[in-house]
Amino acid sequence: MARSNIFRLRIAFSDCDPAQIVFFANYFKWFDTSSREFFTACGVPSWRDTTAERGIIGTPLVDAQARFMNSATYGEDIEIESSVESWSNKSFVMRHVARRGDTVLCEGREVRVFAKQDPEDPLRIRAVPIPEDYRALCE
Amino acid sequence: MARSNIFRLRIAFSDCDPAQIVFFANYFKWFDTSSREFFTACGVPSWRDTTAERGIIGTPLVDAQARFMNSATYGEDIEIESSVESWSNKSFVMRHVARRGDTVLCEGREVRVFAKQDPEDPLRIRAVPIPEDYRALCE
Amino acid sequence: MARSNIFRLRIAFSDCDPAQIVFFANYFKWFDTSSREFFTACGVPSWRDTTAERGIIGTPLVDAQARFMNSATYGEDIEIESSVESWSNKSFVMRHVARRGDTVLCEGREVRVFAKQDPEDPLRIRAVPIPEDYRALCE
Amino acid sequence: MARSNIFRLRIAFSDCDPAQIVFFANYFKWFDTSSREFFTACGVPSWRDTTAERGIIGTPLVDAQARFMNSATYGEDIEIESSVESWSNKSFVMRHVARRGDTVLCEGREVRVFAKQDPEDPLRIRAVPIPEDYRALCE
Repeated sequence: MARSNIFRLRIAFSDCDPAQIVFFANYFKWFDTSSREFFTACGVPSWRDTTAERGIIGTPLVDAQARFMNSATYGEDIEIESSVESWSNKSFVMRHVARRGDTVLCEGREVRVFAKQDPEDPLRIRAVPIPEDYRALCE
Repeated sequence: MARSNIFRLRIAFSDCDPAQIVFFANYFKWFDTSSREFFTACGVPSWRDTTAERGIIGTPLVDAQARFMNSATYGEDIEIESSVESWSNKSFVMRHVARRGDTVLCEGREVRVFAKQDPEDPLRIRAVPIPEDYRALCE
Repeated sequence: MARSNIFRLRIAFSDCDPAQIVFFANYFKWFDTSSREFFTACGVPSWRDTTAERGIIGTPLVDAQARFMNSATYGEDIEIESSVESWSNKSFVMRHVARRGDTVLCEGREVRVFAKQDPEDPLRIRAVPIPEDYRALCE
Repeated sequence: MARSNIFRLRIAFSDCDPAQIVFFANYFKWFDTSSREFFTACGVPSWRDTTAERGIIGTPLVDAQARFMNSATYGEDIEIESSVESWSNKSFVMRHVARRGDTVLCEGREVRVFAKQDPEDPLRIRAVPIPEDYRALCE
């Protein structure tokens, strides 16, 4: 079974919109943070270190999707369970489930790549093959 | 052909992350703003007014998805073209295309419903049939 | 000596800007969350409950100020110590100190009031005298 | 009289909090954007270009302060007028006034420095004397 990691947070007043509930884009932000927390739990070095050592700046997104099932509001404690659902040569799929207790709030999937800066244009990035050692840490 | 609306913005420094590019979740935020700008351009009243008149608090998301094709950075002017791709009884699909000049940066889809507050629990919302008059304004 | 509360957080990648450091406005956001955490630790009910019971919607800001002394970046764990520095009839001053270990990153002050919605215009709010029982909880 | 620049924006739903009004920290974000728009209007090159040419990464904040006078909500168009209030050797003070029509919403001040990356630690920055040519452009 795939490794997973749990990222916990308390919803802040400013995470919510005038409908009194979490503004949906915050789930995407939290999924991103939870992806990195997953890597940290698995032992993958900081993107700062991978940049210095291998030029790998992180795992930018190619695609992101989420389904919103139940709303949540400020003061509530939620958790996000994150795991890698599948790996291919150049990309991988992360799965996230946000829960408040037993209630599923939101489910998401991200397609990510490992990327380096384009040496000819620092504002462009290009995908590189998934580093075998990082993948091994995460399985 | 479906009506569409263009929402323009200049990317701010604070919209970008340490990789120097727009943090992806901001596209979801902008798509949301662009959805509302679309409704405004079509003549749908402010959610404040629809709340007062019909109890309709807005069009919360059931599902959101985006594909990221090219990166963008601060100081760049981009535009987001938004339209309703399809309507069903209780939900509709908005499509968004973010472009910098002729370069497509990101394409997104949102499944949305029109919703009222649950009278028994102000923190819960429930979908209502799509108001015919609002739909007519948008077609 | 005044009561204080500590709010802990780990800086996320998306909290940082292209200069690789925390975008300064996030400190103001975190100070706001830390103010509420202070009230919660003191036993002041949720703003949802105070709205229902007394019409008090929270403690909006009249003035906010921060001095930035050292920068911080993603992956770092920081803490914000919050306390009420002084009380007057209608307003109070919260003080926040953000630290990473022994290093002070930022110091802030907020002038806040307790507020109700204006019954004649729900988009306007007005300050009310500081509730004695809430103040007693915080001292 | 000092040069000033006007930055216009429409308040989005997601800029507002459960009290239905702009979450205050967004004003600090907008002041920052408006500061950069001021420099752009004066002819100061992009921070990307100044980084490449002189190592100057921008104008980080030493201190920020704002007074909140009137609230604003989504759908409203506001403008922020920004100018440099004073210059000293190593720092300068920007002043911002946010208005909706004739109503002043918020007034802010930022103390900023021009900064370079510390060559020995890319995560640290240090203030440099204010470049005379940039200052001349802004006066």
